[in-house]
Amino acid sequence: MKREIRVGLCGCGVIGEGLVTALQQHADVISARAGAPIRLAAVADKDPARLDIVRAQDPSIALLDDAFEIPKRDDVDIVVELIGGVEVADRLVRAALDAKKHVVTANKALLAERGAALFELAEANGCDLYFEAAVAGAIPVIRVIRESLASDHIRSVRGIINGTSNYILSSMANDGAAFGDALKAAQEAGFAEADPTLDITGGDASHKLALIAGLAFGARVLPSEIPTEGIEQVDPRDIQYARNFGYAIRPLAVAERLQDGALDLRVHPALVPQSDPLAHVDGALNAVAIQGAMVGPSFLSGLGAGAAPTATSVAGDIIDIARNSLAGAPMRRWYLPTEGAQEIQAIADLSSRYYLRFSVQDESGVLAALSGALGDSGISIELMVQDVDDGDGGTATIAMLTHHAHEGDVRAALDAIDDTHLTTASTHLIRIVE
Amino acid sequence: MKREIRVGLCGCGVIGEGLVTALQQHADVISARAGAPIRLAAVADKDPARLDIVRAQDPSIALLDDAFEIPKRDDVDIVVELIGGVEVADRLVRAALDAKKHVVTANKALLAERGAALFELAEANGCDLYFEAAVAGAIPVIRVIRESLASDHIRSVRGIINGTSNYILSSMANDGAAFGDALKAAQEAGFAEADPTLDITGGDASHKLALIAGLAFGARVLPSEIPTEGIEQVDPRDIQYARNFGYAIRPLAVAERLQDGALDLRVHPALVPQSDPLAHVDGALNAVAIQGAMVGPSFLSGLGAGAAPTATSVAGDIIDIARNSLAGAPMRRWYLPTEGAQEIQAIADLSSRYYLRFSVQDESGVLAALSGALGDSGISIELMVQDVDDGDGGTATIAMLTHHAHEGDVRAALDAIDDTHLTTASTHLIRIVE
Repeated sequence: MKREIRVGLCGCGVIGEGLVTALQQHADVISARAGAPIRLAAVADKDPARLDIVRAQDPSIALLDDAFEIPKRDDVDIVVELIGGVEVADRLVRAALDAKKHVVTANKALLAERGAALFELAEANGCDLYFEAAVAGAIPVIRVIRESLASDHIRSVRGIINGTSNYILSSMANDGAAFGDALKAAQEAGFAEADPTLDITGGDASHKLALIAGLAFGARVLPSEIPTEGIEQVDPRDIQYARNFGYAIRPLAVAERLQDGALDLRVHPALVPQSDPLAHVDGALNAVAIQGAMVGPSFLSGLGAGAAPTATSVAGDIIDIARNSLAGAPMRRWYLPTEGAQEIQAIADLSSRYYLRFSVQDESGVLAALSGALGDSGISIELMVQDVDDGDGGTATIAMLTHHAHEGDVRAALDAIDDTHLTTASTHLIRIVE
Repeated sequence: MKREIRVGLCGCGVIGEGLVTALQQHADVISARAGAPIRLAAVADKDPARLDIVRAQDPSIALLDDAFEIPKRDDVDIVVELIGGVEVADRLVRAALDAKKHVVTANKALLAERGAALFELAEANGCDLYFEAAVAGAIPVIRVIRESLASDHIRSVRGIINGTSNYILSSMANDGAAFGDALKAAQEAGFAEADPTLDITGGDASHKLALIAGLAFGARVLPSEIPTEGIEQVDPRDIQYARNFGYAIRPLAVAERLQDGALDLRVHPALVPQSDPLAHVDGALNAVAIQGAMVGPSFLSGLGAGAAPTATSVAGDIIDIARNSLAGAPMRRWYLPTEGAQEIQAIADLSSRYYLRFSVQDESGVLAALSGALGDSGISIELMVQDVDDGDGGTATIAMLTHHAHEGDVRAALDAIDDTHLTTASTHLIRIVE
């Protein structure tokens, strides 16, 4: 009865090594809580040096250079996919499911792009496909939405789900550093990849948000359909103005069901009021705020990246699958997407408050002309501050918060203003989320 | 295959009514996510008026005045126990398990007192016994510890797990109200029971903490073994002094594994630094901060009480059991306690920093005598403020924070001081948790 559950690990990078350590060092609690010993039977990686590290920990583990050998093994019940990327990982996960192996993956890109087909394949083969580590590292957002809130109509999910972006914006806020310097510091501290493109452009967050939208709303969403902006345009001055207005700037992902049934999905830096717990999520922490019809506000925070925290999520999934297997049945819990394509609101139709920063000539009449132009477009100013810039350029900065307006109207008004000689540089816009 | 899962509800008070509403209004998402329709087959309550409310919602539900009829019914797969109390609920849950019905309960007192035997009975009968709603209402602390963090060694759990106490301390902080007035306002606002004893004395939190200690540490703990203090002794002046020192006063429950293997378990009001997210958990919100060896810091907050939030947790458990049943096997996930009795640190052995408030004669030499007496006991003052009291009593208040000290030494020193004529009233002590 209490048989052993055997794991095959594909990809032994940072998270994989964390998982190897966890399965070794916490073998006692893991087997107690799973109901049977969980043994790492095989590890595959192209890099022999990584396999050497595994061999040093436990010489009994089979070491392979080809991940596709893992699903073929009779001594593997659960395949853990940590190789990343889409194409090869897709083939690997398919091979595992076809071989009736359960799968745990941390691969948000794979699931966001190919999830629908993979979950169908898992269902057809009677296998589990778990992915807690794909979204927000150690924060159990997948399990909470899928299980704890399973009875609720979820209204919105807002989160800081890219640790690199949050680390950079936090250090800009704390040190007043420019974006490029903060990025470099983050790379040196190991909080940003050598190629951070996917993180700082919002691409990584849009992958995760597609998965969240699938779970929360049953929506079949591709990341490319999600309006996405990175944090590169955020200037230390924006952070300073925001702070003076009572806000922090955070890299947000937003998923909300609108009154008309459409989905408001977006990834962008946003001003968040200091009274919102998201404003206090600093550094490499991630956080997710869920609003449900019954549950009300629910807030989760924790480390969004790092070997040990992410490995905890992978190991939690392994234990869940082990329990399912020991009980004699996979659970095949409800997956994404269940309701097919849904309308996603165009960003031009968004109704929001906005932070605007204008660079203008320091001469009389400019502010009047500016507010006139905004007013003519139906955009009303809530709060405004004007600073004469240092230096002899004769320029000034006007920062303001608007009342609610449609983004299409705001963009059109800003384009018209920037086409005049009122502004000396293009105007910065950051959305307010509250 | 897609058969129906049938629920029998025992006790239709506030949470029960919330559950009836949830199962009706969210039937669509619930059946989609459970994998089969979930039908409320029968409801039992002694109060005919409550049954009338159920009848108005759905006349097809069987209505009974005797909860013990529910486990006997062939058309019930899951028994939901919401009658509360220990003795009758114990017999009811036993009857359900003996009849091979799965059980969902929100009854913290029952599980804290009788959990060990009940979980054994569930195991013996091959039944599930779920209890997410027993701790912290809508916050999924049970599921997160039991599933998401199942691979981790949990080091500490700290939480605000009694909403009534937090509501009272919050309104004392916001309005400067005295404890008695704040309690009365909480009762009028529906945030405190007519008999709030169990909430304000910390008893309710000690029940919940016993369950948390069971899950987090496998410890078999009875609530009576947990050093517990209520919030009745907190004075508006304490909240004010704490704020000036950079702290908030919160009703905390603490569970921590000490270096020597013993458990530090306690329930009491505590000073929490403003930099701690727990300091910002206001009103009826609950929150739990978990520290794991691998996962690092994990923070959860949400509504700790109320019909709909608590019903969400009950319904999530029902859906989980439904999935288990549909998969053909109950999960019988790891329960508490797994490791039997463990040593609980005596409160006198606690090493902590302390907030102390002395009422003294306003005359020279008092402060010197006071700090001398503390110093002689090895208690070192970190921060101190002295206020001459208004009025003509010739008294003063000295509030201070100490460096780390053993509570036994501090209590002995305070007893000695209060035995002299230095103080005009007994000295207030509140622990600092950081």
